Amino acid sequence: MTTRCRPLPPTDDDKPHEECGVFGVWDAADAAALTALGLHALQHRGQEATGIVSLEGGGQEVRNARFHAHKGLGLVGDNFSDPKVMAGLPGRAAVGHNRYATTGETALRNVQPLYADFEFGGLAVAHNGNLTNAHGLKRMLVRRGCLFQSTTDSEVFIHLIAISLYSTVVDRLIDALKQVQGAYSLVALHNHALIGARDPLGVRPLVLGRLPAREGEAQAAGSGWVLASETCALDIVGAGFVRDVEPGEIVVVDDAGVRSIKPFGRSPGRFCIFEYIYFARPDSVVEGTPVYETRKRIGAELARESGVPADVVVPVPDSGVPAAMGYAQEAGLPYELGIIRNHYVGRTFIEPTDQIRHLGVKLKHSANRAVLAGRRVVLVDDSIVRGTTSKKIVEMVRQAGATEVHMRISSPPTTHSCFYGIDTPERSKLLAATHDVEEMARIIGVDSLAFISHDGLYRALGRPGRDPARPAFCDACFTGDYPIPLTDQQDNSERQLSLLHATQ
Amino acid sequence: MTTRCRPLPPTDDDKPHEECGVFGVWDAADAAALTALGLHALQHRGQEATGIVSLEGGGQEVRNARFHAHKGLGLVGDNFSDPKVMAGLPGRAAVGHNRYATTGETALRNVQPLYADFEFGGLAVAHNGNLTNAHGLKRMLVRRGCLFQSTTDSEVFIHLIAISLYSTVVDRLIDALKQVQGAYSLVALHNHALIGARDPLGVRPLVLGRLPAREGEAQAAGSGWVLASETCALDIVGAGFVRDVEPGEIVVVDDAGVRSIKPFGRSPGRFCIFEYIYFARPDSVVEGTPVYETRKRIGAELARESGVPADVVVPVPDSGVPAAMGYAQEAGLPYELGIIRNHYVGRTFIEPTDQIRHLGVKLKHSANRAVLAGRRVVLVDDSIVRGTTSKKIVEMVRQAGATEVHMRISSPPTTHSCFYGIDTPERSKLLAATHDVEEMARIIGVDSLAFISHDGLYRALGRPGRDPARPAFCDACFTGDYPIPLTDQQDNSERQLSLLHATQ
Amino acid sequence: MTTRCRPLPPTDDDKPHEECGVFGVWDAADAAALTALGLHALQHRGQEATGIVSLEGGGQEVRNARFHAHKGLGLVGDNFSDPKVMAGLPGRAAVGHNRYATTGETALRNVQPLYADFEFGGLAVAHNGNLTNAHGLKRMLVRRGCLFQSTTDSEVFIHLIAISLYSTVVDRLIDALKQVQGAYSLVALHNHALIGARDPLGVRPLVLGRLPAREGEAQAAGSGWVLASETCALDIVGAGFVRDVEPGEIVVVDDAGVRSIKPFGRSPGRFCIFEYIYFARPDSVVEGTPVYETRKRIGAELARESGVPADVVVPVPDSGVPAAMGYAQEAGLPYELGIIRNHYVGRTFIEPTDQIRHLGVKLKHSANRAVLAGRRVVLVDDSIVRGTTSKKIVEMVRQAGATEVHMRISSPPTTHSCFYGIDTPERSKLLAATHDVEEMARIIGVDSLAFISHDGLYRALGRPGRDPARPAFCDACFTGDYPIPLTDQQDNSERQLSLLHATQ
Amino acid sequence: MTTRCRPLPPTDDDKPHEECGVFGVWDAADAAALTALGLHALQHRGQEATGIVSLEGGGQEVRNARFHAHKGLGLVGDNFSDPKVMAGLPGRAAVGHNRYATTGETALRNVQPLYADFEFGGLAVAHNGNLTNAHGLKRMLVRRGCLFQSTTDSEVFIHLIAISLYSTVVDRLIDALKQVQGAYSLVALHNHALIGARDPLGVRPLVLGRLPAREGEAQAAGSGWVLASETCALDIVGAGFVRDVEPGEIVVVDDAGVRSIKPFGRSPGRFCIFEYIYFARPDSVVEGTPVYETRKRIGAELARESGVPADVVVPVPDSGVPAAMGYAQEAGLPYELGIIRNHYVGRTFIEPTDQIRHLGVKLKHSANRAVLAGRRVVLVDDSIVRGTTSKKIVEMVRQAGATEVHMRISSPPTTHSCFYGIDTPERSKLLAATHDVEEMARIIGVDSLAFISHDGLYRALGRPGRDPARPAFCDACFTGDYPIPLTDQQDNSERQLSLLHATQ
Repeated sequence: MTTRCRPLPPTDDDKPHEECGVFGVWDAADAAALTALGLHALQHRGQEATGIVSLEGGGQEVRNARFHAHKGLGLVGDNFSDPKVMAGLPGRAAVGHNRYATTGETALRNVQPLYADFEFGGLAVAHNGNLTNAHGLKRMLVRRGCLFQSTTDSEVFIHLIAISLYSTVVDRLIDALKQVQGAYSLVALHNHALIGARDPLGVRPLVLGRLPAREGEAQAAGSGWVLASETCALDIVGAGFVRDVEPGEIVVVDDAGVRSIKPFGRSPGRFCIFEYIYFARPDSVVEGTPVYETRKRIGAELARESGVPADVVVPVPDSGVPAAMGYAQEAGLPYELGIIRNHYVGRTFIEPTDQIRHLGVKLKHSANRAVLAGRRVVLVDDSIVRGTTSKKIVEMVRQAGATEVHMRISSPPTTHSCFYGIDTPERSKLLAATHDVEEMARIIGVDSLAFISHDGLYRALGRPGRDPARPAFCDACFTGDYPIPLTDQQDNSERQLSLLHATQ
Repeated sequence: MTTRCRPLPPTDDDKPHEECGVFGVWDAADAAALTALGLHALQHRGQEATGIVSLEGGGQEVRNARFHAHKGLGLVGDNFSDPKVMAGLPGRAAVGHNRYATTGETALRNVQPLYADFEFGGLAVAHNGNLTNAHGLKRMLVRRGCLFQSTTDSEVFIHLIAISLYSTVVDRLIDALKQVQGAYSLVALHNHALIGARDPLGVRPLVLGRLPAREGEAQAAGSGWVLASETCALDIVGAGFVRDVEPGEIVVVDDAGVRSIKPFGRSPGRFCIFEYIYFARPDSVVEGTPVYETRKRIGAELARESGVPADVVVPVPDSGVPAAMGYAQEAGLPYELGIIRNHYVGRTFIEPTDQIRHLGVKLKHSANRAVLAGRRVVLVDDSIVRGTTSKKIVEMVRQAGATEVHMRISSPPTTHSCFYGIDTPERSKLLAATHDVEEMARIIGVDSLAFISHDGLYRALGRPGRDPARPAFCDACFTGDYPIPLTDQQDNSERQLSLLHATQ
Repeated sequence: MTTRCRPLPPTDDDKPHEECGVFGVWDAADAAALTALGLHALQHRGQEATGIVSLEGGGQEVRNARFHAHKGLGLVGDNFSDPKVMAGLPGRAAVGHNRYATTGETALRNVQPLYADFEFGGLAVAHNGNLTNAHGLKRMLVRRGCLFQSTTDSEVFIHLIAISLYSTVVDRLIDALKQVQGAYSLVALHNHALIGARDPLGVRPLVLGRLPAREGEAQAAGSGWVLASETCALDIVGAGFVRDVEPGEIVVVDDAGVRSIKPFGRSPGRFCIFEYIYFARPDSVVEGTPVYETRKRIGAELARESGVPADVVVPVPDSGVPAAMGYAQEAGLPYELGIIRNHYVGRTFIEPTDQIRHLGVKLKHSANRAVLAGRRVVLVDDSIVRGTTSKKIVEMVRQAGATEVHMRISSPPTTHSCFYGIDTPERSKLLAATHDVEEMARIIGVDSLAFISHDGLYRALGRPGRDPARPAFCDACFTGDYPIPLTDQQDNSERQLSLLHATQ
Repeated sequence: MTTRCRPLPPTDDDKPHEECGVFGVWDAADAAALTALGLHALQHRGQEATGIVSLEGGGQEVRNARFHAHKGLGLVGDNFSDPKVMAGLPGRAAVGHNRYATTGETALRNVQPLYADFEFGGLAVAHNGNLTNAHGLKRMLVRRGCLFQSTTDSEVFIHLIAISLYSTVVDRLIDALKQVQGAYSLVALHNHALIGARDPLGVRPLVLGRLPAREGEAQAAGSGWVLASETCALDIVGAGFVRDVEPGEIVVVDDAGVRSIKPFGRSPGRFCIFEYIYFARPDSVVEGTPVYETRKRIGAELARESGVPADVVVPVPDSGVPAAMGYAQEAGLPYELGIIRNHYVGRTFIEPTDQIRHLGVKLKHSANRAVLAGRRVVLVDDSIVRGTTSKKIVEMVRQAGATEVHMRISSPPTTHSCFYGIDTPERSKLLAATHDVEEMARIIGVDSLAFISHDGLYRALGRPGRDPARPAFCDACFTGDYPIPLTDQQDNSERQLSLLHATQ
C-alpha cells in the first residue's frame, strides 16, 4: 500500500515531487505565526495543503492543555494570513505541515498534522516520507479494531502509538517506530514535549535550530527550539542552526531542554541524494553542505565529463540554474537566460482546444529569441523523468533559432521509481528505464544528450566516487539499490483497504 | 458527556430541537436519489448538515463492493441537487442522515453517516438520538487505544463494533448495543445488509417500508426496502408502510429479505411523547396514530380543560396550527390566522443595533391586525421553553390591538431537560422549572395561561390517563421521570475528552 | 422590449410572480438597518437579489454627501446580516430593493437600486413594475449617445433624468415620468430628498408611513418617513401607516417634510386586482382593505357561487389558505390541512432521474392521508396558470384516498399575460387561454372545477360588481382589458438592443 | 482626476507597477482561447483582474453579431481555465485585458474590457495607460447627461464615442482621441473590426502580429491578426511580429486587411524608458530592441560608470538579474545567486505580530549565506522607489555575513511620479525626491550606492546620450520633463465625481 498522492495533471511539470515539509516550535511567543513562516519557507516541498496545530497551556500544566488546529487546501499564505485564524491558534508550541498534491478524493481529511486524543493527552503528528510496510500494518490494525479516517501513512503512526502498551508517549513512539519500515521525518507535539524523529537511514531531512533570546525576556528563561525539514525554515524565523537530527535519532524537546534517544543504534545513513539535486531550496544547508554550491559543482563536473563546443549555456529555469552556472564557468562559455519562466501560471489553465494544442504552447516557459537565435546552445536541466517537457522545451528553443541544442542533465538517468516519499511515475513511464541515452536524445530531439555519471555526482558531493558496496546516499532512483525493504510492493493481497470514495 | 449540539442563536426560536433524521434503502435503482428524497421529507428533523453513503456492488459480491460518500453543511436540496454529485453515489443501497445544528467547531468532521473500514468490509452508520453513557464508554475506548475523529456518539457505536470479538457485523452490532445506554434509532449499511435498530424503550422513532415493484422489473425480483425516521419519508418515495421497528428490535435487510432480532427481549416501550406534540411532521403516522389528528385532539382536550370566553382562536404558526384548530372547533370559536409567519428568514439576520432592538422586531412572525384589533384572543402554541419568544409574540399581538390575550399550550409545562436526543436548554433556563403557571402568565404578559394536563394529554393519545407506575410514553421533560439512566450526568470526571479545537 | 425576468425553473411553482419590493427611509438613525428589515418583510415580492443604497451626510450638506451601496444575490437576511456590511452603509436615509428571479445572464449588474452620479449629486432608484414603451425609449437614448449598463427598465428612468433639461431632480423626474408608459412604483434617493412615485393608474402599490419619535430624541426633531410597497414593511419597523401614495402622485420627502406633486392630474386608478388575490402579504392592508379578510370573502363568495356536496375543505398551501377558510365557513364544511407544505425546499433540488420521475414526487407538498382518505375533498387554490402543479396535487390527493376532488379557484380564469410587472407565461401557455373550464377540469383530473366570477370577485372587494365600462381594477390577466398601451408589444423591430452576453 | 489604482499593501514590493496589458485578435478560430494565452503572457502587466470579450458572427453580418463577456478577479489562468467559461466565449475575434491592483471598492465593475451597446453595434474597449484630462472630460460628460458606471478612464473613451456626431465607429474614435490627453494604448472590438490605437507620443507600447495560416485552412483565406502590449504575447500564440503600432497611429483590422490612420500627423514619439528597465518581459522586443540585451547593456554601462572592488555580483531577483549579469561580465566578477526568491507568496500573508515583526522577516527573499558570508557584495537592482525594501534586503545580506555591500541601480534616481499609467507613490514618498545619493546610501545602509547616469542609460539604449532639448524617451520619472500636459493635476475643483462607495 502506498498513500502517496498522484500529481494533479496541470501542475505536473514532469519533475519528481517532494511530498511534504514539516516544522515544529517549542517555547516561543507566537508559536503558530513562527510555524506559518517556517512552512512558508518550506512551501517548495508541498503546495497542495497546509495545517498547523498549536498547544496552549502545555508543559507541566497538562490538565489545562488545549490544542488548536487549522488546516486548508492551498498555500500557507492563503490559509494563515487572516488575523482571526492566527488568533485561533494560541500557545507557545506548534507543529505544522505542507502537503504535496493530494488527489480530489482525499481532500481535507488527509491534511496534516493529524491529531488524536489519547488517555495521556493529545498528540499532533506531521510527517514527511513514506512507509514501505504500511499496507500490512494497516491490515493488522484494522483487524485489531482500529478505525482509519484518512488514507495517510501518518495515521498508522498514530494508531501504533495508541495501542502501544508502554506508558509514556516517547516509549510509545519508539514502540511504533520499531514496527514501521520506510523513509520518514516526523515532528510530533504532545502536552509535554515537541518530538522529532528520522528513520534509521535518515533518508528524509530534519534539522534542529534554536531561536535567539528576545529582548525583554530574561536570558535565563532560555529560548525556544525549532525542528524543520530544511535550514531555510530556520533562517526565516531567525533561528540558529544547531545540528541535523541524526539518522534513527529521536529528539525530545521539553521544558528541561533537548534530549536525544537512539533506539536503533548508530548507522551510517543513506540520505536522499535527490535532495541535493532538486528538492532542497538552494539556500539550505543539507547535511553540512550548502545546496547551491553543490549544484554548481555538479554543473562543473558535468562540463568536465561531457563538454561540447557551443556558444551559450542556458538553464531550464528554475531548477537548472545553479548547475548551468557551474557548467558555464567550468566550460568558459557565456551563461545566458535563454528561457524565461512565467511565475503566474496559477493552479490550472486552459484545457487547450485542438487548435490551440497545435500551437504547442508552453505556459510556464518562453524562449528568449535574442539569446538563442543562431547559437549553439547547451541546455542544462536537473533531470529527465518522462521526457515530455524536455521535448517541448527543445522544440521551443529550436523554433527560436538555435542551430544546435545539447542537453546536459545534472543527475544520472532516472531508471527506478522512488518508494521513500517522492512522487515519481511508475517505472514503465520513466524514459530512462526503457531507452538508452542515444534513444533518449532522439526522442527529445537534441543534437547530444549527457547525464552526470554516478561517480561524478558523488565527487561533486565531496566523496571519492560511488562505492557500490557502501554507497553514502540513497540513490535508488538512479541505481535500483533500495536500502529499505519494499514490503508493500511484494504484497499481492487483493482486498483494498479503503472501500470508501468520499467527496465533500 | 453529551455530544449534543447547541442551537445556533439566530435559528433558536425558543423551541426544543430534534437532532436527526435517518433514512436507508436496500435494493433499489437510484438508491442515493431515493435517500435524498427521503431526507428532504425529514428536513424538519435537522437542517444543519446532511450526508449520504451509497453502496455499489454489495450483496454477495463483497470483494467488489465500494462505498461512496458525500456530505455537506446545509439543506438536502442544496447538497444533493447537482447531477455530478448524484452520479458520484452509484449503487442499489444507501443510507443518509440529516443533522440538527452543529456548532462552528465541529463542522464537517461530525456530519453523518460516519463510515469506517473493517476487516469484514465497510460500515456506514446514521444515528438519531443520544447515548447517556457515552462519556464513560469513550474513556474506556480511548484507554484501549481507539482514536476518535469526531465528537459524535455515533463514533462510539463504530468503535464498539470495531473491537467486538464477534465475527459477523450483526453480532458485533448487538455486542455494541448491549454496552450502550440511551435513546437512539440507527440505520447502518454494510456490504451485505441494511440494518435498523431502536433502543430497548423505543424512545426515538423508526419505521420500515417497502418500495413498489417497478414497471419493467420482474415481479419475482421483489422490490426494495426502506428504513426511515417517519412515515412521511416513505410517502415521498412511494414506499408503503410495513410496520414500526419495535423497541429494542434489530431489523436486518439483505438479499434474503427482512430478518428481525430482539436481543433485549420484549418491553412495553416508552415512545417520546413530544414527537406527537411537536417534532413529527403532521402528515406522519407515528406508532399507528396520525400526528395531525392527535394534535387536533390535544387542542380539543385543552378547550375542554381550560376554555375561556374569547372572540377568536389564533395559532402561533406553524407548530400551533392543528391544536388551535382543535381548540376552536371544540370551543365553537372562529379560528383565524392572526399571526403570519415569514418563511424567508434564512440562516441569519441582522445583528440588530440598539436602535433596532428598541423596535422589538420579530423576524419570523408578524401580526395580522385585521384579525386581532379589538378582539379577545386565545393564542395556541405547543410549548413554552424559555418563554422569550412567547413574550414577544404576546407583545406583538397586544400592539395589534387585542383586548385580551389568553395563551393555551398543547403540552404540560416543560420542567426538565431532555437527555435522549432532543436539544433543550439546561433546567435552570426552563421557565416552567422555576416558576408556577401564575408567575409564567405574568412574565409572558397574558391575561390567562393554561397547559394541557398530563391526563388530558394521555387521553388525547387514546389512553385512559397517565399511569404514574407504568406511563406509556417517555414524558421526562414534563415529569422528570427518566426511564433510561443518566450515567454521564452523574460522572464528575474533570478531564475533557477532546483537547482539540479545530476550525477549517 | 421587456426586461422582465424569466422564472428559474426549479422555483417555478406554476404561479405568477411579483417582480419587486421597494422600500425607502428618510431621516432615521440606522436607516440601512431599517431598510433591511423592511425588505425582509417584503421578501415575498422577490427572493433572487437584494440591494440597499444609503446616504451619509445628505440634506443641506450636498458637498459632504456620500452614497454607500451593497447588493447581492439571494435573500435579504443572507446579504445584510454581517455587521461589517451594515457598518458600510451609514447615514440617516436609505433605499432598498428586492428582486424577483433574474436569469443567469444578467446577474449582479441588474440588481437594484441602480445608482448614477449627476451634476446635481447622486441618485439611487429602486423600481417595481414594468415599462411598456421601454424598447422605443431605449433605442432613442442609445441613438442620443447614452450607454446602458444593465438590461433593466430602471436604467431608462435614470437616463431620462440625466438628459432632462430641467434643473431640479424633481422636475427632471417629472420630465422622465411623462415620457414613460407602464405600471410602476418607484422610490428614489438623492442628496436632498427621498422621492416616491406611482404610475398614473396606480397599478403597483406604494404606501407612506412615519416612524415614531424615539425616546431620547427631541420631539421637535420630528421623526422619519418611510415609503414601502406594502404596509407589512411599515409594521416591521414600527412605522405608522399614513396613507397610500396616490395614482400618478409624486411624494417628495425632505427635511422640510412631505410634499405631494400630481403632474398627471387626478384619475380613478386601476390597482392590480391580483395583489389582493395572491401577491400581497395577508397581513398587509392594500388600498384601505385588509388582504386576509378580502381573501376570506372571496372564498365565501366562491362557496356561494359554486358550492358542492363534500366532506372537507382543503387549501393548497400557503396561498389558498384564507380563501379555503372563507369557503369552509360559508359552506359549513370542516376545514382541514390535507396538504402539508415543506418549507425547506431551498433554491434547487435533484434533477430527478427517470426512475425518480416515475414516482411523481412533489417536493413542496405532501398529502396528509389521515384527512383525505375516504373523503370528498374541496381543494381551494388561488389560480391556475399552466395547470401542471394543479394536476400533480390532484393526483397526490387521489393517491391519498380522496373519493372525490373538487377544485375551487379564488380568481377568474387567467386568460391573458401581464405586461405590468408580473411574470406570467406567454398566452399560449396559459391553460385557461386555450381551454374551457370543462376541458381544464379533465386535464387537471378533478371531478369538478369552478372559478370565482368576475362580478363575484368585485363583490368580495366591496364593489357592486365589475363595470365593464369603468372597471375599478386592472384585471387584464382575466379580461384582456389592458388599461396602459402595450407599445413595445407592437414594435416589431428586429435589432436586439443588447448584443452582450456576460457571465461573471 | 486619476483612476489609477492604489497597490494593495501586501503585494507592494516597493516597485512601480504597470497598470495593464491588452490583447486583441481578429479572424482566428478559438479567438478567446488565443486571447487567454496572450493575456497569460502579459500577466506581469497586471494580476488583479482580467477579462475577455469575444465577438460571434461579426464582420459583415452585423445583425447576427453577438458579444460575449467574462471577467473575474485574479489571474488569467484562474479565470479562463474552465472549459464551460471558454465555451461561453465563441467567435473568431476577441479582445482582452489584464488589470493591475484595483482597490477593494471598485471591484468587478471596473474590470475591463468595458462594453457598450451603440446604435451602430457593440464596442468593447481594453485600455492601458492614463488620461491626464479625464477629470475635466468626465465633468463635461456628466453635465451633458452621461452616466458613469465605472471609475476607469476607459469609460471616458466610450462616452466620447457614444456622443460623437460622426457616423462610423472609426471616425467617432478619432473624434474621441482628439479630445483626450494622456498616455494610452487601446484595443477595441466592434462588429466590423478590431482597432488598435496609441497616444500621439507612443508612451505605452502596442505591437501588431499575424497568425500563421493553419493546416487545413485554405491559404487564400488568409490568417488572423493580433494586437498586443508586448511581443511575448505574439510568441505564445505563434504569431509573427509585423511591426510596432506607431505613436499616434490608429490601426483598423477588418475583413479587408489592415488599414493605418494617423489623425495626429507624425511625431518622433517618447516611448516610456521604464519599460526597458523594468516593466517589459525580458524576452519581449520593444521598439525594435530586445529587452534582455538592453538590460545587460545597462548593467555593463553601470559597471563602467561606477565599478567598485568586490568579490561577487548578486542580483536582487527577479528584475535585477540581467543588469547584474551585464555588470558582472563587464567587471570581470563572479555572478552568484546570493538572494533566493520565494515564488509561492500568494496574494496575502500574515499580518505579523509585534514579535514576528521584530524578526524583520522577508517573505519574498531569503539570503543564500554560502554565497554571501565573508564577501564584498555588489547588489544590483533596477530601481529604488521608497527605499524600504532595499533597506531590508541590505540588512538581510549583512546578516548573512557580507563584509561590504555596494548597491548599483540600473535606472537613474526616481525623483518624480508618473501620471502616464504607471503606479508610483506621490513625489514626497520617493526617496530620491528628497534625498541625495549619499543620504540614500546611509538610509539604505550600504557602503556605496550608485545609479546609472541619464547619458549612460541612453547609451545603453543605442543613443549617443540624452538630448535635453529632444529626449528620445519619456523619462519624466527621472527628470520631471513631462511631455504630456498634466491637466487634471492643476484642477483644484473640490467636488468628487463619484459619490458612491459600493461593495458587492
